Amino acid sequence: MENVQLQILGAGSAVPTKKFSHPSQVLSLREKVFMIDCGEGTQHRVRQYGVRVSRLNHIFISHLHGDHCFGLVGLISTLDTQGRTSDVYVHSHPELEQLVRPLIAYFCKGLSFNVHFVPFSPTESEVIYDDKSLSVKTFPLKHSVRSSGFLFKEHEKERHIDGEMVKYFHIPIAQIPLIKRGADFLTEEGELIPNRQLTSDPTPSRSYAYCSDTAYTEKFLSHIEGVDCLFHEATFLHQDLPAAKKTMHSTALQAATIAKMANVKRLVIGHYSARYDDPLPLLEEAKGIFEATDFAADGKTFIF
Amino acid sequence: MENVQLQILGAGSAVPTKKFSHPSQVLSLREKVFMIDCGEGTQHRVRQYGVRVSRLNHIFISHLHGDHCFGLVGLISTLDTQGRTSDVYVHSHPELEQLVRPLIAYFCKGLSFNVHFVPFSPTESEVIYDDKSLSVKTFPLKHSVRSSGFLFKEHEKERHIDGEMVKYFHIPIAQIPLIKRGADFLTEEGELIPNRQLTSDPTPSRSYAYCSDTAYTEKFLSHIEGVDCLFHEATFLHQDLPAAKKTMHSTALQAATIAKMANVKRLVIGHYSARYDDPLPLLEEAKGIFEATDFAADGKTFIF
Repeated sequence: MENVQLQILGAGSAVPTKKFSHPSQVLSLREKVFMIDCGEGTQHRVRQYGVRVSRLNHIFISHLHGDHCFGLVGLISTLDTQGRTSDVYVHSHPELEQLVRPLIAYFCKGLSFNVHFVPFSPTESEVIYDDKSLSVKTFPLKHSVRSSGFLFKEHEKERHIDGEMVKYFHIPIAQIPLIKRGADFLTEEGELIPNRQLTSDPTPSRSYAYCSDTAYTEKFLSHIEGVDCLFHEATFLHQDLPAAKKTMHSTALQAATIAKMANVKRLVIGHYSARYDDPLPLLEEAKGIFEATDFAADGKTFIF
Repeated sequence: MENVQLQILGAGSAVPTKKFSHPSQVLSLREKVFMIDCGEGTQHRVRQYGVRVSRLNHIFISHLHGDHCFGLVGLISTLDTQGRTSDVYVHSHPELEQLVRPLIAYFCKGLSFNVHFVPFSPTESEVIYDDKSLSVKTFPLKHSVRSSGFLFKEHEKERHIDGEMVKYFHIPIAQIPLIKRGADFLTEEGELIPNRQLTSDPTPSRSYAYCSDTAYTEKFLSHIEGVDCLFHEATFLHQDLPAAKKTMHSTALQAATIAKMANVKRLVIGHYSARYDDPLPLLEEAKGIFEATDFAADGKTFIF
């Protein structure tokens, strides 16, 4: 079974600390690497943690606060220095392109690849990426500026066909792809063999949801229902709820409540306020509500 | 005697490494902190090394390559988050303002202080800062884009007056400032006491020269003659001279040659190419020409 790997490049928030850098993470699956957010210093972290940038073609920016996108031009610039030739796609709210294009034009003259800005709606949920194996869907969050979550979801996989049954019923090769997709089989004798007798369930499709900066809201629960892994920001301890409300962020308790209500398999919290030296109290608070919680840290990797 | 402190925030070049961040340094003297260059991640380093940002009002950008200025908007943004109210002055070549203003306007809405861009000529030497105790002068370097060096120089200080002589000649208090500035003293009896009998030489004025990205050139030697400390880029080993020439950078040997010809008191090399894991071979190469050489490293401090 193919695993999904989530690597945290920066687990901090607006003000970086000695421990936690600005937000960025990479999701690796099926030989593809996707970047989510790109705070200042991301190119440094990419190098530090050995991210395979040759496989990185798509960057998703959740919202237009500087701590989530100030690393973009530097990353593009350094990819160029390192001899990249394949295009880069930046998925973001529409305004980013007009802000960043002049910098790319000035500082990355003669770029050896194209940078495509692919705008998506900050207010509607939409599928913004789709390939043979997975799709990425956005969903609106609730923050001081428009902010979007991302759902990465593998397509449903083919059913596993039973080799013994193929032999027994003399199933022609041409029929196998149809049966893997759920078709029954009609023998030469005219007998209909139901699919469930020929196949077993497919490898489960993996899903990952990223809930960037957001105040507590249940409005996106349907989008993240049952995901294998949920990243949810937990900027504050619940004792600092007034600060969370004021800045439109969540507490660890709230993140865990969302995870529980959405029946996710596991939760990763992050985006800690610089006021906390240690993420463990945030982790403990979340675990009190939702046991399968872990905490993000720069360089830390999660497999699911 | 008041010391000058130079702290390196990033000793690397265009591509950051695990060891060396993008270029930035701070010069502290007389309770003032000046920043020179502001590569991506500078705000992170500022926090990591405890730079006293409350005393930082002037930022000097040597040239408009991304590795020397991509940290600027992030730094400004974080200064705001931390409650700063005093204005920030960014001294740079003219184009920077039009590139960066839109980002500040978008990402730093409601900034609690003003950011003033103070353009200087990339082709002429000029005094771009002057206060009661020191001045900053630019001088053109030789690089793939216009690049400028900076000379920080304390003004000449007052002579030390001899307290015994003040008593002996009954020198009135009103006369003392004049004598400290070199005046002779006329006694009530009409005798002229020469200044050299009343005073001793002032504390030496300190000077620091920063030679950012540059190919080898002797054209700025007159500007850096005899400085207490010279930072000169040493991107390459001399065995990689073709790479240095191609990218218009210097080798460690060339940096040391400049230091020797300019009779500086000490040399600090930095801005290492990412191809070198270890700066010691660069240091050894420079020391072969100019013994009083040290190497820059992230967080390292030099006092002079």
